[in-house]
Amino acid sequence: MDIPAALDALSTLLGDRLSRSKADLEAHGASESHYPLTPPDAVAYPQDTAEVAGILKICNQHGCPVIGWGAGTSLEGGALATTGGVAVDFSRMASVLEVRAEDMVARVQPGITREALNTELRATGLFFPVDPGANASIGGMVATRASGTTAVRYGTMRDNVAALEVVTASGEVIRTGSAAPKSSSGYDLTSLFVGSEGTLGLITEVTLRLQGQPEAVSAGVCAFGDIGSAVDAVTEVILTGIPMARIEFLDAATVAAVNGYSKADFPETPHLFVEFHGTPAAVAEQAERFGEIVTEHGCSGFDWSTKTEDRTRLWEMRHHAYWAILASRPGSRAIVTDVCVPVSRLAEAVAATQADIEAAGLQAPILGHVGDGNYHAILLLDGSEEERIAAEKVSSAMVERALEMGGTATGEHGVGIGKQKYMATEHGPAWDMMSTIKRALDPNGILNPGKVVPATG
Amino acid sequence: MDIPAALDALSTLLGDRLSRSKADLEAHGASESHYPLTPPDAVAYPQDTAEVAGILKICNQHGCPVIGWGAGTSLEGGALATTGGVAVDFSRMASVLEVRAEDMVARVQPGITREALNTELRATGLFFPVDPGANASIGGMVATRASGTTAVRYGTMRDNVAALEVVTASGEVIRTGSAAPKSSSGYDLTSLFVGSEGTLGLITEVTLRLQGQPEAVSAGVCAFGDIGSAVDAVTEVILTGIPMARIEFLDAATVAAVNGYSKADFPETPHLFVEFHGTPAAVAEQAERFGEIVTEHGCSGFDWSTKTEDRTRLWEMRHHAYWAILASRPGSRAIVTDVCVPVSRLAEAVAATQADIEAAGLQAPILGHVGDGNYHAILLLDGSEEERIAAEKVSSAMVERALEMGGTATGEHGVGIGKQKYMATEHGPAWDMMSTIKRALDPNGILNPGKVVPATG
Ligand SMILES: Cc1cc2nc3c(=O)[nH]c(=O)nc-3n(C[C@H](O)[C@H](O)[C@H](O)COP(=O)(O)OP(=O)(O)OC[C@H]3O[C@@H](n4cnc5c(N)ncnc54)[C@H](O)[C@@H]3O)c2cc1C
Ligand SMILES: Cc1cc2nc3c(=O)[nH]c(=O)nc-3n(C[C@H](O)[C@H](O)[C@H](O)COP(=O)(O)OP(=O)(O)OC[C@H]3O[C@@H](n4cnc5c(N)ncnc54)[C@H](O)[C@@H]3O)c2cc1C
Repeated sequence: MDIPAALDALSTLLGDRLSRSKADLEAHGASESHYPLTPPDAVAYPQDTAEVAGILKICNQHGCPVIGWGAGTSLEGGALATTGGVAVDFSRMASVLEVRAEDMVARVQPGITREALNTELRATGLFFPVDPGANASIGGMVATRASGTTAVRYGTMRDNVAALEVVTASGEVIRTGSAAPKSSSGYDLTSLFVGSEGTLGLITEVTLRLQGQPEAVSAGVCAFGDIGSAVDAVTEVILTGIPMARIEFLDAATVAAVNGYSKADFPETPHLFVEFHGTPAAVAEQAERFGEIVTEHGCSGFDWSTKTEDRTRLWEMRHHAYWAILASRPGSRAIVTDVCVPVSRLAEAVAATQADIEAAGLQAPILGHVGDGNYHAILLLDGSEEERIAAEKVSSAMVERALEMGGTATGEHGVGIGKQKYMATEHGPAWDMMSTIKRALDPNGILNPGKVVPATG
Repeated sequence: MDIPAALDALSTLLGDRLSRSKADLEAHGASESHYPLTPPDAVAYPQDTAEVAGILKICNQHGCPVIGWGAGTSLEGGALATTGGVAVDFSRMASVLEVRAEDMVARVQPGITREALNTELRATGLFFPVDPGANASIGGMVATRASGTTAVRYGTMRDNVAALEVVTASGEVIRTGSAAPKSSSGYDLTSLFVGSEGTLGLITEVTLRLQGQPEAVSAGVCAFGDIGSAVDAVTEVILTGIPMARIEFLDAATVAAVNGYSKADFPETPHLFVEFHGTPAAVAEQAERFGEIVTEHGCSGFDWSTKTEDRTRLWEMRHHAYWAILASRPGSRAIVTDVCVPVSRLAEAVAATQADIEAAGLQAPILGHVGDGNYHAILLLDGSEEERIAAEKVSSAMVERALEMGGTATGEHGVGIGKQKYMATEHGPAWDMMSTIKRALDPNGILNPGKVVPATG
């Protein structure tokens, strides 16, 4: 490992697009959640795939770590330079390259954010559905196998990426997948790179599957007396097969935080925020059937609206919930948990988490994409060691319970640094197979070392 | 490679469940399409995962090829023992292990056929949607990333497998995936094994995602004056976003063959066979909107029915189309092509194929899962070398055109022997990456050698 030699060569390749300024290093060493500052040795701003290939060739030769950087919104420290090296920031590769409306696909560069993409798509009648709330980059979303509020209807990044261009550890450019709707042609390399967190290659181009903007959309809100009733209602709605476009759970503490941050006045009890997509007739039918089920489960007055401004405000509030929760305890940081369980076990899992939080005396609102069995406790930290230890304990208990229930340690945020410790338990010998693949594709171990699998090379 | 030593050890392990009878070897050396008989040296009938692990340990030690065998219905020779070795027949591992109705998943052994599975599921209100027509095994369907008539609505095996148990080349048992609806926990090994055609491991257990039986189903048939109108109608239907459950194209020659084989009396012109799933209101709305579009494209009188017996008969005719086509030329065998193109290029691709067939003077009905851009020409062969060469030429031209259009050499049948020659063109350096993964996971090259990637080890 000769980082100085790599930086010399990179600076020749990139000129002033290799930055070593303190501000740049710190911005690329910071995490949105509780991880400490871990700056890289330099930040590279490539302009095209050839430059990315050049960066990887140099870094591979010198054994210099390379860490992809999208929008930096990930929550498990996946983009942090824990062993130094070069952060490759994709903000200058952020264009839409092609929209093929008739095939409902778009080819984009990895640095584009999902909001910018959807703004560009507006006129086409199509949209890209995966919605992690944060304004993440498409490359980062591919790398973490992101999802969010709409996964219950449209799936995750696993389901919405048709093809990739990837630069390998040795600087070779490969293309995976095709523009055809399906294929049985060889190993599914696209799926291997989706969720690989920059440890197998850097993603330089993404072909995304798009959806038609629904003719009609309606959204609504319902309040429940207790968490159990809300979650039971969700289970029944999903089993009934109502094609929910969104079905989000917020506990009483989350609703209180949202009220405070977004100047809303929801009753401070557990809520579901929901959305329906379809033809006008289908949307009306879905909302009616949904209303019947939630009323049976004690929802007081399900109300829905087809007005765009109501909807926009509702989802803005939901998307700001994380900031609202942080603001509910000024100066705090958070451990953001992210388990996912079979839907049949969801009510039990959420109740047990709530009991743990109460027993530990922590402040930790719960919210989640419950249609997928995916929920988060936002464990607020005041900075004391005592509270951190208590929060870590609740977080571990959540994961262990999820694994016992046949679930997973991370529904959508990825492994990063924070979830490494559960990988052996979750995957057993399959985790060793992941390491075998990592070693085969990145023999010098330069790609985001120490993430997903133990450092190799 | 010491096959005799391997067979000795296997015979000790399996007793009379290792067969070397001529009938058994021939049955496991035959293909449903045009490939010549290629018998293995022995057929193993394991009863459980531990026996499969034992088989692989022995074969790995002796360098003996191991080829998985499901129902033997695949069409590209993928299950043929081209270099000898042991066929592992999963017919004694064919149970449903668990149905978790509330989570809409079932855990099954690989040898169960999709028809047997759906019979067992009937009472649960759920069904497994992937439908390749043939009564294939679930393990074979996983291995080829199969799909079929319903993929346009429910996706392919890629979308409907939640988790796997796999025995690796060295005889280790691993589990991939989880029962949670989604996960961002590490590399997507499940997707790596789906479509790997038994070259990376043998699948010994599959967790499948199930669907709720729709409340209402209606099916219908429409006849068109020419292929172009039928295919254009499909493109518009898909773009409009009507959630078709099935949309199958049959050209005039296919319809004639079906009439003859199934004693039907469809007008002998290009047809679409379609199906709608949903609530009664939704199904009626979908059928109506579909009817409007196809009428604009010249369909003469779109007719639909919600009667179960009509539907059953319709799909039986469709599923028997391959046999009907073979019967239309007694004694013939067939090269079954299987390209998939972006839907926007479908009309052009089908028209060019038809022109090629006519120019070559071949008998080759065309049919396909056109909602996915996937179609087949069944190139009938009388046994003459001349006709075989002409058919191979048409087949190659189909693939090359599909690849130029951004499509794939195989939409659903897999690579097997027949599609190897197109892999370098389709995937470029990504094909080398597939070989790198193969070598890492099967260093002695015992797993279905020579399929998907060049033989290694
Ligand atoms: C308020 C808030 C809400 C959130 N809600 C959700 C949610 O609902 N669902 C969800 O899934 N996530 C959510 N997240 C997490 C985050 O938005 C996702 O993890 C997102 O996918 C990260 O994208 P990014 O562009 O910010 O990636 P980064 O944080 O920059 O990087 C993430 C990972 O991807 C790698 N990477 C980035 N770009 C590339 C590339 N081009 N090639 C290879 N590797 C690359 C990095 O090395 C790192 O390992 C939320 C975050 C916040 C702050
Ligand atoms: C009339 C007809 C119509 C068809 N229509 C379609 C269609 O619409 N869509 C479609 O996708 N296919 C179709 N097919 C092809 C065929 O049905 C599929 O390829 C099917 O998936 C093969 O399953 P099988 O159990 O017969 O597998 P086999 O033919 O036994 O094996 C197929 C491959 O899987 C491997 N394999 C089998 N079991 C295992 C295991 N447990 N572990 C690892 N590897 C294993 C084999 O080694 C081989 O490489 C059709 C075939 C026919 C004859």
